[in-house]
Amino acid sequence: MSFVERLPRQVTVVEVGPRDGLQNEAQPVPTELKVAFIERLADAGFPVIEVTSFVSPKAVPQLADAEEVMRRIARRPGTRYLALVPNERGLERALAAGCDAIALFTAASEAFSQANVRASIEETFERFRPVAERAQAAGLWIRGYVSTAFHCPYSGPVDPQQVLSVADRLFSLGCHEVALADTIGRATPRDVDRLLALATRAFNPGRLALHFHDTAGLALANVMVGLDHGITVFDAAAGGLGGCPFAPGAPGNLATERLLALLAGLEIETGVDREAVVAAVTELRQSVPGIGARAC
Amino acid sequence: MSFVERLPRQVTVVEVGPRDGLQNEAQPVPTELKVAFIERLADAGFPVIEVTSFVSPKAVPQLADAEEVMRRIARRPGTRYLALVPNERGLERALAAGCDAIALFTAASEAFSQANVRASIEETFERFRPVAERAQAAGLWIRGYVSTAFHCPYSGPVDPQQVLSVADRLFSLGCHEVALADTIGRATPRDVDRLLALATRAFNPGRLALHFHDTAGLALANVMVGLDHGITVFDAAAGGLGGCPFAPGAPGNLATERLLALLAGLEIETGVDREAVVAAVTELRQSVPGIGARAC
Repeated sequence: MSFVERLPRQVTVVEVGPRDGLQNEAQPVPTELKVAFIERLADAGFPVIEVTSFVSPKAVPQLADAEEVMRRIARRPGTRYLALVPNERGLERALAAGCDAIALFTAASEAFSQANVRASIEETFERFRPVAERAQAAGLWIRGYVSTAFHCPYSGPVDPQQVLSVADRLFSLGCHEVALADTIGRATPRDVDRLLALATRAFNPGRLALHFHDTAGLALANVMVGLDHGITVFDAAAGGLGGCPFAPGAPGNLATERLLALLAGLEIETGVDREAVVAAVTELRQSVPGIGARAC
Repeated sequence: MSFVERLPRQVTVVEVGPRDGLQNEAQPVPTELKVAFIERLADAGFPVIEVTSFVSPKAVPQLADAEEVMRRIARRPGTRYLALVPNERGLERALAAGCDAIALFTAASEAFSQANVRASIEETFERFRPVAERAQAAGLWIRGYVSTAFHCPYSGPVDPQQVLSVADRLFSLGCHEVALADTIGRATPRDVDRLLALATRAFNPGRLALHFHDTAGLALANVMVGLDHGITVFDAAAGGLGGCPFAPGAPGNLATERLLALLAGLEIETGVDREAVVAAVTELRQSVPGIGARAC
């Protein structure tokens, strides 16, 4: 049986543009435009949208309106609205804003964790423990992120065993899903194959997600390798929003439209209307000239 | 065994930029720049370069210097320099210019054949018969092209059985290799899977080549499906030269640099130095401002 014939018939596309995309824009996008963008994306059919992050407004001013965004969006039944939560303070804000799904963000690279959140990997887990306990008690759905799952911009190639170890700790904390992220877009299809050969043996492939950046033009190739290993959850950002903070001018997040074109070409169901995504991005670009200009 | 583990270890990249790329430029490129470009590509390590076409200079003025290009290039031992030959007159010119490898170009779509070469598929084979006989007698290596092997810009989807039939006739004529071409860049990975499931049963996969355009952003995905079916010869154009005459503004030929990045990422040997290809394209672009501006 050929590779294509063995593929899963259905895949979940997680739209991360409103959070991972817009947090990289130089200027904050007005709240009402974010709300309209998120509502249009929900209408396009995404089962999961990562909408914002309850980080410190000082650290990420682009997402300082997290509460307002969460409160103002008209929630579509069946859509999961995900928000990043870095600590207990963030969880309190998320709960007050009516979140029912959160994401915890750590790294497989010690150097990246220090540079990105000024904490060791161990310290991020110390912060997560009370967050996860309270979130579980409140019945929230929890996603974990392992950033720099392949390459670190500071320390180079990342040992797959370190990725498995961090993913295992996230699952043990109570995460329902763990996303392995190629933060700087340097993973090759071989890298993905090697990590997934181990990860899909260690964990249920149905609870793993992949988050690729298209910096080197290999994101879709990497998605295909993921599909080959039975992964059925893939992140992407509408319009390729976000750029790459580590490679100025290069595409960052895999553009959702490109991912949807691939999946359609493989006859894999997503339930997402590609034209509606293009329309949502076009509308945002008309309202915020220059947004995502660096995207592919 | 995963998809990646089953892949071939070595692949032949056929560089078609000097012919398929430059023939689509609005202005002819000066002969000395073509010669320098081809020589740099040969130095980069391509085993096969499609350098020109012995078509009527009236029909394709961009390649009116075919003889001069063939005569002036310093031939690198081990490099095959391929030239398109549409008829006996073209073969005479090619032989006089010292060609030792030619390509015959036909289509799987009757409508495309009529529009592109003003002849039915049957008529192209009538033209090819004496060409192939003389070429074989002269010991030339012969490649056949089946254009519109997936979609025709005039008549829509193309029946795979029609592709097999045309490929079979090309092999019967004495072609050493037959390239199946997605002329308008509309083939999906499913389309490629379906055609190759049949084609690799009908023919030796080692004698089939794939020629993809990146118009819809799926060329690399299609290459991966080709690799999965044991195809080991892929066409590409340095710098994505050529654009797409059927979709203005869209990328045309798959950019060689993108193909080489994928193959390197899959740890597949090509013998081609990617940096040298980038340097060759950069030099050409500096000499001919605006060239390939539509490319990806």
